[in-house]
Amino acid sequence: MSLPARVKLVDVGPRDGLQNEAQPISVQAKVALVEGLVAAGLTHIEVGAFVNPTWVPQMANSEQVMQKMARLASVSYRALVPNVQGYQRAKAVHASEVAVFTAASEAFNQKNINCSIDESFQRIESIFAAAQQDNVAVRGYVSCALGCPYSGDIDPASVLSVCQRLLDLGCYEVSVADTTGVGTVGSMQRLLDRLVPALGSEVIALHCHDTYGQALANIACGLQYGIATIDASVAGLGGCPYAPGSNGNVATEDVVYMLNGMGIQTGIDLATLIRVGEQISGVLQRPSRSRVALAFRSVK
Amino acid sequence: MSLPARVKLVDVGPRDGLQNEAQPISVQAKVALVEGLVAAGLTHIEVGAFVNPTWVPQMANSEQVMQKMARLASVSYRALVPNVQGYQRAKAVHASEVAVFTAASEAFNQKNINCSIDESFQRIESIFAAAQQDNVAVRGYVSCALGCPYSGDIDPASVLSVCQRLLDLGCYEVSVADTTGVGTVGSMQRLLDRLVPALGSEVIALHCHDTYGQALANIACGLQYGIATIDASVAGLGGCPYAPGSNGNVATEDVVYMLNGMGIQTGIDLATLIRVGEQISGVLQRPSRSRVALAFRSVK
Repeated sequence: MSLPARVKLVDVGPRDGLQNEAQPISVQAKVALVEGLVAAGLTHIEVGAFVNPTWVPQMANSEQVMQKMARLASVSYRALVPNVQGYQRAKAVHASEVAVFTAASEAFNQKNINCSIDESFQRIESIFAAAQQDNVAVRGYVSCALGCPYSGDIDPASVLSVCQRLLDLGCYEVSVADTTGVGTVGSMQRLLDRLVPALGSEVIALHCHDTYGQALANIACGLQYGIATIDASVAGLGGCPYAPGSNGNVATEDVVYMLNGMGIQTGIDLATLIRVGEQISGVLQRPSRSRVALAFRSVK
Repeated sequence: MSLPARVKLVDVGPRDGLQNEAQPISVQAKVALVEGLVAAGLTHIEVGAFVNPTWVPQMANSEQVMQKMARLASVSYRALVPNVQGYQRAKAVHASEVAVFTAASEAFNQKNINCSIDESFQRIESIFAAAQQDNVAVRGYVSCALGCPYSGDIDPASVLSVCQRLLDLGCYEVSVADTTGVGTVGSMQRLLDRLVPALGSEVIALHCHDTYGQALANIACGLQYGIATIDASVAGLGGCPYAPGSNGNVATEDVVYMLNGMGIQTGIDLATLIRVGEQISGVLQRPSRSRVALAFRSVK
């Protein structure tokens, strides 16, 4: 085992976490969330998405969030963009970087973004054409890397192919997403046995959902492959509207607790992070989904 | 990594899972739970405890459960016993085997059973004197192996010392328990780095609580050390009344899902197990704490 000495945590709570909330969440609450995450030590935050507000109304105020939040030069404030129009909106409000997305599953791409994998790459290529001109870094997401709600098991070779295309286009990193949380240490090993030798661990991030309670075990598995970038969502905010049963990104608090226990540096202050998670959970009027936050509260 | 090909799961739900429930649970409901677990393929079940009913009223009907349940010769129906009187009660109702307990922490032993570690061994020795005469197998529990709610970190050397004493007395297996769920892959590695070379993986079982969401990651870590006996509790029933914030044994369903994904045999039918968990959750009038059970229900 060659564990990384330090892990870069990417909090996707403000975007992936909140995008499916039915109740509108104010610009003020989102700004407080982003600023709170920075205060807790997060250096990579997915702040919002520049998608069609008809389909994802919760992200409609992403411009305002980007404009009103205080910024630190050391923090990357990322925006998810589906196409070149979204990219231009992100650029106009000075997103530090952008993220593009596709899936390792044809069926999921059709249901999620109504196009084939190849068609999704046409959109991504036009984003790259603009972003490279502007010198804006681009991250790639690969959904359904450990299974698809429509087509079941996903061949690691398909995931590798999509990752390779994203990296060839110029993504600095690919985040392989277990969108529905169906993955286990077994499927994670099979995937990483294929990806890591081909791509190197340094360009791979893991984006695990905890729907089946497997996320931390899967992340611990990934760490053993040298993967040192982990997506998570404060208070376990999140899910995907097109993936049945997908509620629950892994909670950032729970990942930090595990990494602390393993002696792996994150630069994050867990107590502050727990307070940030409690604050947004209060806004949403429901308990945190972080087991660590709940445990610390009950011990107090 | 040398993963076991097969894992023996021990369901402790009827005992550790139910012992702290405030509402009385009928003999009938407990018998249905035990028989359901057997129908799901469990071969090792901790059915009840012969402890003082003043302190643990929920276990007062353990005799009746043991007497009324149907039995298979291939299944071990275990009882927890604190002393020789409890052992005699267990023997009278033909418990297949018994379990004794102590802790790796002096402070926890004082709070939990009001005696020192040495004094707990006097009780255990008198149980052994009787059990060996009767040819009844004895399992040992070591509480707080990864941390104590009163004294904090626990030295792996203390855990090893207690395990060794239990094995020397004649326990066929020691179950090292993360009673409050505070352990991480880091503390589990430090513990097993000490225990496995000294004792061998075949006499070690892991008993993980999921209070901080770490249980599956910790179990996956243990599997890599060759440990092939895992305690769990259907529907995530359980906790410990003397350990603040300790609610939640790891759910058997979640462990089985992980092991299935890793290609490790358990002999357990997950769909049946989920139904058994839903049945007891219905009796308790609360949702299952198994993430897998909840995910399967939301996907249906």
